[in-house]
Amino acid sequence: MTFGTRTLAPALLLCAIAAPATAQNNDGPSVQGDLAVTLNDGFDDDDALNFDWPMLSIGTGQYEDGPTGVTVIRFGRKVHGAVDARGGGPGTVNAPYLDLGYVQPELDAVVLAGGSWYGLEAVTAVNTAMKDDGYRGGHWNNVGLAVGSIIYDFGGRRLNEIYPDKRLAQAAYRAARPGTFPIGPYGAGRSAMTGGLFGCNARSGQGAAFRQIGEVKIAVFTVVNALGVVTDREGKVVACHAGQSWPRDLRAHDLLNASPASLSPDWDGQQAAEPDRKNTTISLVVTNRSMSSAELKRLAVQVHTSMARGIQPFATELDGDVLYAVSTDEVEAGPGDGLVTAEIGAVASELMWDAILSSVPQQPVAPQPRRSADGSDLQEFAGTYTFGPLASLEVTAEKGRLYGRATGERDVFAIRKDGPTELRPAGSNVFVVPGRYPFSIRFEGDEVVVNPGRWQQVGTRK
Amino acid sequence: MTFGTRTLAPALLLCAIAAPATAQNNDGPSVQGDLAVTLNDGFDDDDALNFDWPMLSIGTGQYEDGPTGVTVIRFGRKVHGAVDARGGGPGTVNAPYLDLGYVQPELDAVVLAGGSWYGLEAVTAVNTAMKDDGYRGGHWNNVGLAVGSIIYDFGGRRLNEIYPDKRLAQAAYRAARPGTFPIGPYGAGRSAMTGGLFGCNARSGQGAAFRQIGEVKIAVFTVVNALGVVTDREGKVVACHAGQSWPRDLRAHDLLNASPASLSPDWDGQQAAEPDRKNTTISLVVTNRSMSSAELKRLAVQVHTSMARGIQPFATELDGDVLYAVSTDEVEAGPGDGLVTAEIGAVASELMWDAILSSVPQQPVAPQPRRSADGSDLQEFAGTYTFGPLASLEVTAEKGRLYGRATGERDVFAIRKDGPTELRPAGSNVFVVPGRYPFSIRFEGDEVVVNPGRWQQVGTRK
Amino acid sequence: MTFGTRTLAPALLLCAIAAPATAQNNDGPSVQGDLAVTLNDGFDDDDALNFDWPMLSIGTGQYEDGPTGVTVIRFGRKVHGAVDARGGGPGTVNAPYLDLGYVQPELDAVVLAGGSWYGLEAVTAVNTAMKDDGYRGGHWNNVGLAVGSIIYDFGGRRLNEIYPDKRLAQAAYRAARPGTFPIGPYGAGRSAMTGGLFGCNARSGQGAAFRQIGEVKIAVFTVVNALGVVTDREGKVVACHAGQSWPRDLRAHDLLNASPASLSPDWDGQQAAEPDRKNTTISLVVTNRSMSSAELKRLAVQVHTSMARGIQPFATELDGDVLYAVSTDEVEAGPGDGLVTAEIGAVASELMWDAILSSVPQQPVAPQPRRSADGSDLQEFAGTYTFGPLASLEVTAEKGRLYGRATGERDVFAIRKDGPTELRPAGSNVFVVPGRYPFSIRFEGDEVVVNPGRWQQVGTRK
Amino acid sequence: MTFGTRTLAPALLLCAIAAPATAQNNDGPSVQGDLAVTLNDGFDDDDALNFDWPMLSIGTGQYEDGPTGVTVIRFGRKVHGAVDARGGGPGTVNAPYLDLGYVQPELDAVVLAGGSWYGLEAVTAVNTAMKDDGYRGGHWNNVGLAVGSIIYDFGGRRLNEIYPDKRLAQAAYRAARPGTFPIGPYGAGRSAMTGGLFGCNARSGQGAAFRQIGEVKIAVFTVVNALGVVTDREGKVVACHAGQSWPRDLRAHDLLNASPASLSPDWDGQQAAEPDRKNTTISLVVTNRSMSSAELKRLAVQVHTSMARGIQPFATELDGDVLYAVSTDEVEAGPGDGLVTAEIGAVASELMWDAILSSVPQQPVAPQPRRSADGSDLQEFAGTYTFGPLASLEVTAEKGRLYGRATGERDVFAIRKDGPTELRPAGSNVFVVPGRYPFSIRFEGDEVVVNPGRWQQVGTRK
Repeated sequence: MTFGTRTLAPALLLCAIAAPATAQNNDGPSVQGDLAVTLNDGFDDDDALNFDWPMLSIGTGQYEDGPTGVTVIRFGRKVHGAVDARGGGPGTVNAPYLDLGYVQPELDAVVLAGGSWYGLEAVTAVNTAMKDDGYRGGHWNNVGLAVGSIIYDFGGRRLNEIYPDKRLAQAAYRAARPGTFPIGPYGAGRSAMTGGLFGCNARSGQGAAFRQIGEVKIAVFTVVNALGVVTDREGKVVACHAGQSWPRDLRAHDLLNASPASLSPDWDGQQAAEPDRKNTTISLVVTNRSMSSAELKRLAVQVHTSMARGIQPFATELDGDVLYAVSTDEVEAGPGDGLVTAEIGAVASELMWDAILSSVPQQPVAPQPRRSADGSDLQEFAGTYTFGPLASLEVTAEKGRLYGRATGERDVFAIRKDGPTELRPAGSNVFVVPGRYPFSIRFEGDEVVVNPGRWQQVGTRK
Repeated sequence: MTFGTRTLAPALLLCAIAAPATAQNNDGPSVQGDLAVTLNDGFDDDDALNFDWPMLSIGTGQYEDGPTGVTVIRFGRKVHGAVDARGGGPGTVNAPYLDLGYVQPELDAVVLAGGSWYGLEAVTAVNTAMKDDGYRGGHWNNVGLAVGSIIYDFGGRRLNEIYPDKRLAQAAYRAARPGTFPIGPYGAGRSAMTGGLFGCNARSGQGAAFRQIGEVKIAVFTVVNALGVVTDREGKVVACHAGQSWPRDLRAHDLLNASPASLSPDWDGQQAAEPDRKNTTISLVVTNRSMSSAELKRLAVQVHTSMARGIQPFATELDGDVLYAVSTDEVEAGPGDGLVTAEIGAVASELMWDAILSSVPQQPVAPQPRRSADGSDLQEFAGTYTFGPLASLEVTAEKGRLYGRATGERDVFAIRKDGPTELRPAGSNVFVVPGRYPFSIRFEGDEVVVNPGRWQQVGTRK
Repeated sequence: MTFGTRTLAPALLLCAIAAPATAQNNDGPSVQGDLAVTLNDGFDDDDALNFDWPMLSIGTGQYEDGPTGVTVIRFGRKVHGAVDARGGGPGTVNAPYLDLGYVQPELDAVVLAGGSWYGLEAVTAVNTAMKDDGYRGGHWNNVGLAVGSIIYDFGGRRLNEIYPDKRLAQAAYRAARPGTFPIGPYGAGRSAMTGGLFGCNARSGQGAAFRQIGEVKIAVFTVVNALGVVTDREGKVVACHAGQSWPRDLRAHDLLNASPASLSPDWDGQQAAEPDRKNTTISLVVTNRSMSSAELKRLAVQVHTSMARGIQPFATELDGDVLYAVSTDEVEAGPGDGLVTAEIGAVASELMWDAILSSVPQQPVAPQPRRSADGSDLQEFAGTYTFGPLASLEVTAEKGRLYGRATGERDVFAIRKDGPTELRPAGSNVFVVPGRYPFSIRFEGDEVVVNPGRWQQVGTRK
Repeated sequence: MTFGTRTLAPALLLCAIAAPATAQNNDGPSVQGDLAVTLNDGFDDDDALNFDWPMLSIGTGQYEDGPTGVTVIRFGRKVHGAVDARGGGPGTVNAPYLDLGYVQPELDAVVLAGGSWYGLEAVTAVNTAMKDDGYRGGHWNNVGLAVGSIIYDFGGRRLNEIYPDKRLAQAAYRAARPGTFPIGPYGAGRSAMTGGLFGCNARSGQGAAFRQIGEVKIAVFTVVNALGVVTDREGKVVACHAGQSWPRDLRAHDLLNASPASLSPDWDGQQAAEPDRKNTTISLVVTNRSMSSAELKRLAVQVHTSMARGIQPFATELDGDVLYAVSTDEVEAGPGDGLVTAEIGAVASELMWDAILSSVPQQPVAPQPRRSADGSDLQEFAGTYTFGPLASLEVTAEKGRLYGRATGERDVFAIRKDGPTELRPAGSNVFVVPGRYPFSIRFEGDEVVVNPGRWQQVGTRK
């Protein structure tokens, strides 16, 4: 069973600002420096939230070779901010400062990124870009302040460990523009996943929502990369690669009430799968309504807590969830708008649920294997393909069948290190490995493309 | 529309340990000292969670004259604890100590009480009871430690301001016994309400749930007194006195998505009701599994966050939500039980949802008014009735109709201060005021009983 | 070597509001209820800070039978407050609320007490006194808020475990008056000590200081009960019962630089004394200058940190140090007064050092033993004297010498449980045990007075 | 009056790893990329702490053109850490994570840097260097974790805003070696100052101290950049450019007790100087003794608090003080070593005071002006010199006198923008401006060197 409602992203429009990507991702500094940068593109209108708020500019950057990315939200002036860190393994820059609640606004930008703790370089890089560009300086009342957080998008998510770095983040910062926030697997959410606790391993991304009530604007942004599953307002699981013997009409409370049994592939309590040990959902809520630091903190707490409805479970020890709350201070609070913080929080929380739901992309589907192979000469696919220093794949053909074996540090998804796995034909140059998770592989000359499409991983034959 | 699924509590079996209550509640210290104490009773099996865990003893005490109460959970030895304070107005004793994460267990008891910040006397009283009884002493390794929190159960909830005090708390502590936790309007949850944000004003109480997985026991307890509404796993509102023009099939996301319109009685965005400014949900999760202080803190965060599913919205600035997490350290953690903290947290979070749902009592229903009054002489009901220093009621009969007017500091619920309200006959000595909230009044000699039943308020004719 | 500069307190003027104290302190609830209460007295002008600030009222109460006590600081209206908890074992009521930084002032009183965690009953009792007296009520904008902390004054400090309770605290609250704060061993500081880390075991107390700069008033209060020693501005130790072989001109940096050697009685690193495991210094700084919650928090942090100069070491794991900062909001901040928070903090920090120094009372000195006993018949002193349930003393006379042996749970200071200790004559009915710490005992009929004077302990012959 | 005890640093041994610095510091990204890097040098034995602890490696990097720098402390394996943020404006990376108290050690390095919040790039850069070098990777149990903090070393400290960036930090990280920590104006302390609150404006730097007790090693490191003054153990001010009418024998308590009068240049309460609004002292304490997360937090609190003795005032709203505490877990805790955390904390606190004192370099002294100028042709010095985008200096000669006027955004120290300042001859090409702070200027061809020596600023004639 595979869920998913949004249309596939169109082909990427690469906007290279550096040398084109090499196929060889050896993960070292030279490679990071050579990676192609994709900025603010790769999505169409269905994949973006469009909204009218000149004070907010959004820049999205990706290394498609990861894939991984960064999302920068710039404010048109210094603003007040608050932070709420709830997960067991957060990554943050300058969180204690935000907690202090100063009278004077200081915050310039919130940066969200992939790359686990390495991706925090993206946050500090946005700050130094403001300095290098002369937008901010060193006088005590003009020091730039970017804060931000990261998600863990390594592990089982991809075959390399490319991370968003200074170069990518500064490019995304400089490309920021108002009005459009791409939703789905873009920016910081490029390689996000959900549901690892139950083995769901669904693809995820970043989401957003916006609403205006009178003069009060509220926008929310989130990068959903959770141990838990995404759930809708009727309690249904939105995306999950379910086990074969699982209930067909999967509801969140089935999964949750049945745990620990539901942690095992066959719902029988045996051989509980070890969940991926690191996950993170990072979020931002912005309002133009004036709010004191204390009110912003209350808003952050309320909205962050509310996310437990759309992501179940949430804020576990294996998540590093952080939420930022910001007021751009454009509209004075007053009796006229009839809203207390709790009410703004209630509205923002519903928006955040919308944003969570918007983040889920259509899930990948592998083609069906064919009964009989076509006449292609399988030997042309044989060889050893490398995906960088961590993963490589040995392909052999024998008696009209094609086999793969992972020969690097790690498995190539369904192709394990511990023995040959048959690659069953699904097309002239396309093969699959059936199983709980879609897995396909396409041979193109000296390249092999694993899981072709939005999250493909490309290897090169030595 | 009124929701509610549990049966009405049986008549109370008063277990007075002091002089019987006087009808006059003048809220001063002498009256507090004269109030009748109800201990561990007033409920039948349907109104209690029964579970097997000798290490936990529960004592419940109430001043029915409030009504208000206290719930004491004692542990059979010193245990580790953690705390997570999320609401905007928490009341706590010794929270910073719990946050320090000491190696040595120190905690003896968790005390939950009504009475807003005054009810914190119940927490410190349990600690001094341990000292006075010689159970704990002054040596540095034997100092008693009770922690705890309170709910705000004044305001629109009742006509007096009686609070749980030292006498009540020490009695409840000394009456604690293992195996039974009353659910519904008992103990600290005696005058709890929910849904004030939307004007729901549903009666609430305390809830509990228990589960054992192998050797691992998990119990959760909660006193639900929330600005938000209680919601079930399909997103339906469990209890609400809905406005007349509201949707008949009320779902939480209708209320939430439609705010701020749903904050007004007629769902039209006009005249938004001001929510009661203080509310609090206070909770406890206990496991017998060994957990370090850091793990307990993670458990507290995860379970507390999860409560946003069963109470919507949750953790607002107008709540003072606090959750305690405790390990009794009876079962070693090990690979054998296949559970990491996140999984225990997931199970405990589902239990907490069950506990929240269990807390909701059957809602009061007022009798129907009769078309024509019976022949009773209404003059016999006339007079001024007082409910203590805050509220009094003037009843007059004129031309075969009965009228009430509140003459004290505050309204007597549907009977306002600003003019006479007709009391429409519903029985020989029973009258009602139709409206969104059930309101009835029964005359018995020189006493008047407002909203007879579980939450009745008794006034006396001068 | 014994330091100390202030004159001995005059005889106490007991102001009993209850039945007179019995000689038998059996530490149970009945005894707590029978103890005599001493309010706002027992000190003369040299022992008090007098200052002009009508907004602050101070009430001091003591159970001389402990001795232990409570100090209540009431504010003339609701004020803003902040808290800084630094020690390893703090005792607090409502600290998380103060940390939230609300716009509306809520705080009514700060309560400091002895009695370890049991003494927190004094804090909650002041709150319920405000309610019981009708000064505060239950409406959401009028709920009373008392916060406060306790010191650990059990252990080696006295032979009983009497603690400040509801009765004492409410009496002290109701006796509060402006203008006078007793300094030395009064109120919460009644049985305070310092220097346990080095075996100094000096008597301590509560201190205070006040300064006005233009319109800005600053008052500081502290109860010094520290693991460390009190030090003056030249780095000298103010009070310490030094070991025999210690340097004569004792300076704090000698003690500190030489640790761990200085932890042993003979400065040789052998047999390090185990310090008393619990200590606490609790403090309050108040200004009439308007300050936001964030500014108050900064003030609290700065002043609390500065106390490490006058108490060395400070804020250890064996302390439970807490400081409250309050603004009465009587004087607007402005450029006119030329003060930023850091400067107010600097002034307040010097005041706090003054307050710490003021807290140290003259240390007790035991009389010299006589070469030869007078002709008194020692048999008249023989018998078993009890100090309550924890300590009793067997006195025997043999061959013209008097011996003591502790027969209860604990030693009677220099008189141990493990064998007879000779009581050497120092007067007709006065005896001493020479040693590092002054110890004398006086027989009066059926009573025995240990360490007669300010901190005496009275036992009764069975 | 100028204090200072340590010898002047020898000439720098530049170890350029990039193109040599240009004279033109226009502060943009290209310039940052062109700056010469100085690594682990520029100091002699008197300027370093040498100690034996292979588990600790130290790397120090500077941009002498700032001057500013970075100090990296690497640990030989993953270690436990805790953090204590006390100042009003801290800069931190990953502080909330450290506060969580995980069982598994995660920390790899602590990075201290100049450059205000921009310098946080140095912290994240060390983390990505570990990844780029293959020392750490992306598997969940092997993710690199560098934490760290920054000081504010812009403002009145120098004429440019160069900051430690990724290039400098990664070079310093890779140059780290055990055994030597340079003390004084090196690394992160390159442009540190102290005493701004009183106008002292003394040069400062980084300090360190080490002690071994049995098997237990303790090392402390600090970068002293404080609003307050550095004070020794007798309460004397160690370094201050005092006002002319100030007491000759300046003691800290004179300054502090006399504030706010002591905040004015003439100690008269008039024209209080506005202190520099941002300062920070950042510190690290390391022990090889095993400590739990809770114990490390206690250690951090105790040692950080103790620093208020050596820096007065400390932890103000205008500081951003942060301290890290680390255990390398090499020596088991046990009764054998006779040390509880409080005692280790006491020893470490004395070491920290030593480290603070060691950080103070010899203060710069300007040459005396001559009565009569020599015969040099002053016209040869005339021209406009630029120090980068922020500062430039116009030098004119008239009637045998030389004048300067600042023509950029800011003053060139004693040479103001608001009018010509006479430059009085002190040598053939050396001139001074007498005043509270030493100021001299030397002409060398087309370059002008302001305050020649350790903290010189070089301008170039257009």
